[in-house]
Amino acid sequence: MESQIRLGICGYGNLGRACVSEIGKNPDMTLRAVFTRRNPGDLPDTGVPAVRMGDAAQWRGELDVMLLCGGSANDLPVQGPELARMFSTVDSFDTHAKIPAYLDAMDKAAALGGNLSVISAGWDPGLFSLMRLYTESFLPKGKGYTFWGRGVSQGHSDAVRGVKGVENAVQYTIPSESAMQRIRGGETPELTAREKHTRLCFVAAAEGADRARIEREIKEMPDYFKDYDTEVRFVSASELLDNHAGLPHGGSVIRVGTTGGANTQTAEFSIKLDSNPEFTASVLLATARAAYRLYAQGARGARTLFDIPPALLIPQDPLAAVRELM
Amino acid sequence: MESQIRLGICGYGNLGRACVSEIGKNPDMTLRAVFTRRNPGDLPDTGVPAVRMGDAAQWRGELDVMLLCGGSANDLPVQGPELARMFSTVDSFDTHAKIPAYLDAMDKAAALGGNLSVISAGWDPGLFSLMRLYTESFLPKGKGYTFWGRGVSQGHSDAVRGVKGVENAVQYTIPSESAMQRIRGGETPELTAREKHTRLCFVAAAEGADRARIEREIKEMPDYFKDYDTEVRFVSASELLDNHAGLPHGGSVIRVGTTGGANTQTAEFSIKLDSNPEFTASVLLATARAAYRLYAQGARGARTLFDIPPALLIPQDPLAAVRELM
Repeated sequence: MESQIRLGICGYGNLGRACVSEIGKNPDMTLRAVFTRRNPGDLPDTGVPAVRMGDAAQWRGELDVMLLCGGSANDLPVQGPELARMFSTVDSFDTHAKIPAYLDAMDKAAALGGNLSVISAGWDPGLFSLMRLYTESFLPKGKGYTFWGRGVSQGHSDAVRGVKGVENAVQYTIPSESAMQRIRGGETPELTAREKHTRLCFVAAAEGADRARIEREIKEMPDYFKDYDTEVRFVSASELLDNHAGLPHGGSVIRVGTTGGANTQTAEFSIKLDSNPEFTASVLLATARAAYRLYAQGARGARTLFDIPPALLIPQDPLAAVRELM
Repeated sequence: MESQIRLGICGYGNLGRACVSEIGKNPDMTLRAVFTRRNPGDLPDTGVPAVRMGDAAQWRGELDVMLLCGGSANDLPVQGPELARMFSTVDSFDTHAKIPAYLDAMDKAAALGGNLSVISAGWDPGLFSLMRLYTESFLPKGKGYTFWGRGVSQGHSDAVRGVKGVENAVQYTIPSESAMQRIRGGETPELTAREKHTRLCFVAAAEGADRARIEREIKEMPDYFKDYDTEVRFVSASELLDNHAGLPHGGSVIRVGTTGGANTQTAEFSIKLDSNPEFTASVLLATARAAYRLYAQGARGARTLFDIPPALLIPQDPLAAVRELM
């Protein structure tokens, strides 16, 4: 029997709160403290001390793994390397283009601190990345696709909220069912962004705001909406709260491969999530178990899920996992 | 640039032939020899020497990995440990209940020979096992299901062929679409074997054979058919050859999990294969790459895919894999 894995949570937003809710589903883990940039007294009671982030150093040696629950845009690039010098860490850093640079920064920091960091351990990047890797390894001649949704994109919702006259907004990313059906049928089309996903915005506009202008500004927003077919629906602020307060998400990784002469082999992994942050938290927690075990084996520096033997993720001992799951 | 991985194939049935056809899709691999229990002169030309299995010892040092392509029932339990003393090996041993014992036998043999063996690296066990492990790790509170088909079960086809008066037969395993739909919808029912799969047999009967008896004997066969709803269709021998000579297969691993209060999270991995042996061969080959690399890192003894860091499976170097697939 391994001793309990002592965890800290750094950042108490959607993901941090979800880690608190999910930790109890892992009997080999115990939460020791929550670290926050806010006034610790303002946090709701989680049953463990709330600690000012600046005091984290005082917890060295008290935690086996720190779960980094800050945002990828602004928090993790700074907090990650700082904390990796003090603790072994796990995070779900998700700015795809910046993962190599972040991995490098975390590797240096963790090595310097004698710690182990596992980065980008959510569902994409994370579980979906694993699916892309396995399916490409096992079907080397082929083409892979990733679809996201139907689900709430926080980044796109924030972008809509930034439009003048918008009081609140929720954006759903919706995968093209017809594109997915073609691929499932063995086709390997080249698809534009517009052909893969559509975007649906529920917008609560301020009283008297120019709705035509709001709709135009959303649809023409570069990077976020311009390359997509976007629908804007104006709703009341209360309808937004009543019907769109959840954070569902999902998606699919599909690969179509060819073997032999012209045999078609398709593989698809899909998830459908009522709660995006709670699933991400679940992945983080299993990855914390793997980080704890890898560290115990002597590993230092930074890793991704690509480097983690799957057996390290599951509570069972390796032979029990073979018996029950192989 | 790694040097080419030198492979041998042991056993030239469906799987061995598929390994020959798929090896070219992996530019870092080269086939050196095919080993057979038959008269080597009877094998079709594969471009490499055909060698009597009994002469395998003469190839020690000439191969990096031997792909064991014999059957799980009778061949691998004997050949596996014998060859693991001479070579690093990869196989797709698929008798689920006997995997722990086989792993133990292979571990002892490989350790004795200073080799590395990776066992049960097909799609089930293998890729599906990985999916069961990942989804259970990431959704610890939940229930998992595996469905097989629609596809040809060789074991069941052989069983039907063993019935007196049957000249030839092909058995399809068919998953229950309604059961899968319930689970995809978030239900977690307890399902009997009968509720999960049905069985469909195409049978070419000998002239004058008693078809009613054949149908009854099939349907009442213990282990294979008794616990399932089975349909028997009599067809001509030529129709069997024309329409049922392929080896398609497929299946799904589904897990329904709960997070938070009562949020439902579902994950599903499905494959649809035109050629079961060619896909299994593809998995074997990628696993041979991982075995080669793990051996180079000093690993000895026996492993399963649960022990293999995913990055070892793919040709790209680890950083390229992160850039392209994470």
